[in-house]
Amino acid sequence: MKKHNFSAGPSILPDFTIKNTAEAVVNFAGTGLSVMEVSHRDKEFMAVMDQATTLFKELLDIPSGYQVVFLGGGASMQFCMVPYNLLNKKAAYLNTGTWASKAIKEAKFFGDVVEVGSSKDENYSYIPKGYTIPADADYFHITTNNTIFGTEIREDLDVNVPLVADMSSDIFSRPIDVSKYGIIYGGAQKNLAPSGVAFAIVKEDILGKTDRPIPTMLNYKTHIDNDSMFNTPPVLPVFSALQTLIWLKDQGGVAAMEKRNIRKANMLYSEIERNKLFKATVKHEEDRSVMNICFVMNEEYKELETAFREYAISLG
Amino acid sequence: MKKHNFSAGPSILPDFTIKNTAEAVVNFAGTGLSVMEVSHRDKEFMAVMDQATTLFKELLDIPSGYQVVFLGGGASMQFCMVPYNLLNKKAAYLNTGTWASKAIKEAKFFGDVVEVGSSKDENYSYIPKGYTIPADADYFHITTNNTIFGTEIREDLDVNVPLVADMSSDIFSRPIDVSKYGIIYGGAQKNLAPSGVAFAIVKEDILGKTDRPIPTMLNYKTHIDNDSMFNTPPVLPVFSALQTLIWLKDQGGVAAMEKRNIRKANMLYSEIERNKLFKATVKHEEDRSVMNICFVMNEEYKELETAFREYAISLG
Ligand SMILES: Cc1ncc(COP(=O)(O)O)c(C=O)c1O
Ligand SMILES: Cc1ncc(COP(=O)(O)O)c(C=O)c1O
Ligand SMILES: [Mg+2]
Ligand SMILES: [Mg+2]
Ligand SMILES: [Mg+2]
Ligand SMILES: [Mg+2]
Repeated sequence: MKKHNFSAGPSILPDFTIKNTAEAVVNFAGTGLSVMEVSHRDKEFMAVMDQATTLFKELLDIPSGYQVVFLGGGASMQFCMVPYNLLNKKAAYLNTGTWASKAIKEAKFFGDVVEVGSSKDENYSYIPKGYTIPADADYFHITTNNTIFGTEIREDLDVNVPLVADMSSDIFSRPIDVSKYGIIYGGAQKNLAPSGVAFAIVKEDILGKTDRPIPTMLNYKTHIDNDSMFNTPPVLPVFSALQTLIWLKDQGGVAAMEKRNIRKANMLYSEIERNKLFKATVKHEEDRSVMNICFVMNEEYKELETAFREYAISLG
Repeated sequence: MKKHNFSAGPSILPDFTIKNTAEAVVNFAGTGLSVMEVSHRDKEFMAVMDQATTLFKELLDIPSGYQVVFLGGGASMQFCMVPYNLLNKKAAYLNTGTWASKAIKEAKFFGDVVEVGSSKDENYSYIPKGYTIPADADYFHITTNNTIFGTEIREDLDVNVPLVADMSSDIFSRPIDVSKYGIIYGGAQKNLAPSGVAFAIVKEDILGKTDRPIPTMLNYKTHIDNDSMFNTPPVLPVFSALQTLIWLKDQGGVAAMEKRNIRKANMLYSEIERNKLFKATVKHEEDRSVMNICFVMNEEYKELETAFREYAISLG
């Protein structure tokens, strides 16, 4: 049986982002220079970074006390930056998939990791519940959308320790209550920008609580204090991220995105339910991702795959 | 007195690179997808990564036993990756400028640093010589082109320990004898690509000699073993880097670049010498950069600055 996963893999960026980036590659902000050549210290790019940060905060309604930074290295670098900055003795992790396991692996370089729950035994087809987080854990880490397995935590959890979330594949897909989180991070390449830039939303007062010396580039404080300009940022990807943020606002923001995503996901899940050729891989409805819809098809109907794929894509 | 530095700051990429990137932002390799959306696992991008790596090796005549990797995070991330991977007890550094000092600062997180020579006392206006490298140093680190101060080490040094070089601002400006080095690294944004990608040329047998556990993303071996595809690479910057590499080969490679750079630098330095309004800041001729030509002008001639700038650029 082949497993299908709609929307995993390459991101689909708005035409607005692509068009404006193509233009800026030739002539950036009327400078006559390509956005590929412009210095990150030029006022035109400083304005881009500033707007991207401001709009990011506005769209997610990020409360004061939090900072947004843009970083190179991808979400995988955050797997090690999080424990580098936060883990003193012990951290709690929820193992909901490949990415969660990779995050756990990196945390183990820095201290004890308690896996408070795991759905590995059933091929990550559900989100573990009813687990207990040790009260002395430095933080609790979740992966909200498990890109490969089609599960999603769509609720902002109330927990007893700082909450850290990898939102690589569902950031900007719904409103979030940022005040429930210590750090939210992700690669920007799923919903926001071309690959090459990651984001982190950091509650400032959770930093500075470890005695471990932190190399400058791996310290969130460096990037916060320097407005993501400590060293050369990925200029073009940040420019493109700004275009998507402008587009998102114009579409009605994350609340409108959520409606759209739920509508599309419901159409797809109902067809999967109705049609006896298909079966959703995620057991519980409440665990199903609205970003990545996973299902299986019986081998004997394999020749219908393409037709179904086209139908599904036509939904939108 | 205002100090002038020709060629620092934004890189100037070939028109070939800009044109091909602008096209790929709209339609990448005939896929109908933007290079901003394509998955790094798609065969078309795998081919780009493969060609970029191969051509990088070819142009610098990199011997076997060395690997080339492309990484996010900028050259500043290499300041900490180098000691993370190589520093057991002690490393030797040459302090030739701002970037060298920053590299030294990061190495101190991992062990003892012996500053074997420094030109800080004279505002980094020369390259220290006649220093001794401790025989028990794990490596010796140099910054070949000191972007801000206009000095350059244009010789491949013979040293008694593995040699590590930051070549951010002079890579591909001359042929290098790679066999003299353990690691050569740099940000690609000065000569090769838009910001967002760094490169490292790593001699494989200098790795694996420290007992320190290395987080996966900070371990050179990870990126070597996965052909720079362990996680999502900066797809567009790597595509652009390939365009510049193709262009460089077409221009006659690094030997032709060196001739061109020397010719341009000589014209500029002779004018500075001849003209009594100007004075080069780098004392010794052999220390002068062919990439960043630094000079000062007396305050009373300040109104001539623009005219001179235009003349200099016209040489370029
Ligand atoms: C949920 C999640 N986390 C982390 C990653 C890794 O991101 P990167 O490739 O930017 O390191 C991905 C990539 O697809 C992902 O989907
Ligand atoms: C010689 C040298 N090293 C390191 C850097 C830092 O590079 P990055 O901004 O990519 O971290 C620069 C940047 O200009 C440089 O010129
Ligand atoms: Mg997963
Ligand atoms: Mg069904
Ligand atoms: Mg310098
Ligand atoms: Mg003179």
